[in-house]
Amino acid sequence: MNTPLLDNSETRETDISDAVEVAFAQEDATSLNEILERVTISEALRVVLDFSPQDRDSIISLLTPELASRLIDEAPLEVAGDLMEGQAPAKAVEIFDELDSDVQADVIAELDAEDAEALLAGIDPEDAAGVRRLTQYAAETAGGLMLADAFQFRRDQTVGAVLRSLASDDEDLERYNGQHPYIIDDKNHPVGVVSLRGLLTAKRSGRLEDIMVKPMTVPVHASLTELQDLFNDYDFLGFPVVDEDGALVGVVSRTAVDAAILARSETENLRMQGIVGDELRTMPLAIRSRRRLAWLSANIVLNIVAASVISAYEETLAAVIAIAVFLPMVSDMSGCSGNQAVGVTMRELSLGLVRPKDAMRVWLKEVSVGVINGVVLGILIGIVCWVWKGNAYLGLVIGLALALNTMIAVSIGGVVPLLLKRIGQDPAVASGPLLTTITDMAGFFLVLSLATLMMPLLLN
Amino acid sequence: MNTPLLDNSETRETDISDAVEVAFAQEDATSLNEILERVTISEALRVVLDFSPQDRDSIISLLTPELASRLIDEAPLEVAGDLMEGQAPAKAVEIFDELDSDVQADVIAELDAEDAEALLAGIDPEDAAGVRRLTQYAAETAGGLMLADAFQFRRDQTVGAVLRSLASDDEDLERYNGQHPYIIDDKNHPVGVVSLRGLLTAKRSGRLEDIMVKPMTVPVHASLTELQDLFNDYDFLGFPVVDEDGALVGVVSRTAVDAAILARSETENLRMQGIVGDELRTMPLAIRSRRRLAWLSANIVLNIVAASVISAYEETLAAVIAIAVFLPMVSDMSGCSGNQAVGVTMRELSLGLVRPKDAMRVWLKEVSVGVINGVVLGILIGIVCWVWKGNAYLGLVIGLALALNTMIAVSIGGVVPLLLKRIGQDPAVASGPLLTTITDMAGFFLVLSLATLMMPLLLN
Repeated sequence: MNTPLLDNSETRETDISDAVEVAFAQEDATSLNEILERVTISEALRVVLDFSPQDRDSIISLLTPELASRLIDEAPLEVAGDLMEGQAPAKAVEIFDELDSDVQADVIAELDAEDAEALLAGIDPEDAAGVRRLTQYAAETAGGLMLADAFQFRRDQTVGAVLRSLASDDEDLERYNGQHPYIIDDKNHPVGVVSLRGLLTAKRSGRLEDIMVKPMTVPVHASLTELQDLFNDYDFLGFPVVDEDGALVGVVSRTAVDAAILARSETENLRMQGIVGDELRTMPLAIRSRRRLAWLSANIVLNIVAASVISAYEETLAAVIAIAVFLPMVSDMSGCSGNQAVGVTMRELSLGLVRPKDAMRVWLKEVSVGVINGVVLGILIGIVCWVWKGNAYLGLVIGLALALNTMIAVSIGGVVPLLLKRIGQDPAVASGPLLTTITDMAGFFLVLSLATLMMPLLLN
Repeated sequence: MNTPLLDNSETRETDISDAVEVAFAQEDATSLNEILERVTISEALRVVLDFSPQDRDSIISLLTPELASRLIDEAPLEVAGDLMEGQAPAKAVEIFDELDSDVQADVIAELDAEDAEALLAGIDPEDAAGVRRLTQYAAETAGGLMLADAFQFRRDQTVGAVLRSLASDDEDLERYNGQHPYIIDDKNHPVGVVSLRGLLTAKRSGRLEDIMVKPMTVPVHASLTELQDLFNDYDFLGFPVVDEDGALVGVVSRTAVDAAILARSETENLRMQGIVGDELRTMPLAIRSRRRLAWLSANIVLNIVAASVISAYEETLAAVIAIAVFLPMVSDMSGCSGNQAVGVTMRELSLGLVRPKDAMRVWLKEVSVGVINGVVLGILIGIVCWVWKGNAYLGLVIGLALALNTMIAVSIGGVVPLLLKRIGQDPAVASGPLLTTITDMAGFFLVLSLATLMMPLLLN
């Protein structure tokens, strides 16, 4: 155990890549499986994805359905869909059958209707019905995150029945790892849950309804945030999920919720950097390029708006050309200061520490930081400008403009995500460009209007 | 259950704030506890943190140790430390005693030595020794994330002993929720683990060593990434943690690892926005201001370096003042394009899909995006410039410069995080400023040198 865990060096990975390449060239399925079983699944995935799409599909076709399904499970969703589509129909069904029902539903959502139907037709009809049900629910809801099957018993069954089931060799049971057995009535409503302690202290012949307690349930449309709060508040490893009629439709686990929260944090990170929709480098060039351009084209319009402020002051610029040296600096520094405030608000939003209605409180908190940092940065850049260009008044103009603009940028930056959220816009995508446009316009205006006012002094 | 879960409206929260305020003014501890017990713990924390530090401490002093400990557990670490310090010594010990050992160790790390000693002296000496041991380990390692106590038995104990323990009313058992019982030898080495299935199918009088299997263990210094891989590869809910001598020192749970990964993703997000070290708005102004300035001051130096390129071309600028309008635009657009590539690389790093040695492969992938997006954006801005300023050659200069600089920015942006990581720097903090400086310099140089070359045409 300890050895593979601590021997995670790059050298070793190159060896594995080479070994996979050799085994693949010889179509040696046994070696291929052995090599990839020996490493962690994330390493195995990275090695496989390093091959061209065609080779990658061929390699996966040589793997056992079990190992292939673990790779599919580990891969980001778009990639998982591509990998499934690359397999022959029979093999694809074998791999698909090994996946958990929530992953099956996610994969189905990535495929076109025909491929999806072929897969669902290949597995047990009851399981297929469960997966079809799962695909109806939005991704970040209890329905979208749950497993379609629960560890369930009827109320007239005995304690012995549960203990026998726990002790049986049914490998499906592993899915319920740590989950409690739920008791359902005739209408499939969850009416009880029994603890391990209850099972161990009761008579084997006792009926479950005599030792069960009322279960906490989650509605199928509960949001990810609601689930996060719930798992925060209770130590349980899972909750039974019920539909509008109160019938048990699945179980949502702490693990699935944690994974969804992490994924949300990571795509939010990406949106803040200006990529709307997911991107992985294994995706087709056209999609990657288009998704990035979508955001950039909006940004170019905002940039033109900001630049029009400079254009209005060309005379001032022509008189004191040195100002042009400092315009991008004021724009960049203010943008950075504002983005720090955006970052703190985005984090506090995700930690649940602020709500859109807190905008005023946040604004007051940010103004203080903005004033301090504005004064410090204004003095710094003012001195640099004075020393560099030999004109104290120019230093004063640039320093004063940066100081004021930093205050504007920081105080606006803190509240922009909250205001965007309040009007139903995505703060991760829109905060940066909106903030930058405002601070650019304000920055250019401050520098150039102050310079215009002090023009006689600047020309000395 | 369903009612509080779906009634998460802002109105309600204001009501709760008001109710807490009233109960607090009347020093009505009973109502205070009731009100805060009724909402989710994250809501309760937000409501409490909305009060001034003094009031906040007074409110917590009125809560039951159990509820107070849940608030402390939910709060970000710096805040948790402040809240503990705000309590009278006796109350602080009561609250501290309710926390899990891993959280106790985290809180101890936030306090000064005297306060920490006072808390540890107040709890069970054996527990205190466990917490002291935990504080020795780095935060993002198995040791830093584990619980100090494991669900453990001696090899000569019987199956019945484990079942009795599971069935007993010892509330501490909840901590082991879903964990397996580990068997240790005389030297405290974990030599076995038994499954629930094994326990249920064996005779009660049977010895544990007859049904146990060899356990997988994790070394105490295993990194968060190694733990992530491990929990990815195995469905277990926890692993026993061993020290250098192979002795059992604790258990690391999937939940703790998931929470640490999420926290890492969120602070990385913050570092990418230019905040090194944590920041929450509840922290003192001086710390918040200083942490932000640290990064900004470095950035100001880089900005000066970039601006010196403009300064070197003041003559060209003086001749065609319209260029000054487009310099910030080229700088901002290239920076955005480059940051998109940084974002994708950072995400692929966190998903484990790229490694520092993949820089060349990433560069090739990014060049293609850079060429396409460069051409599109270059044509767009070129046309805008031509129409706006009425000079086709100026459009050509600006468009060509942006096209080339986009290619540079995108291809460099993709590899900068990998190169920084290779030389042991934090890619989240340094990628943005480094990239922006390079693309600013290149952008200013391209615009101004192309303009200098084509000067006669621009003056027409």
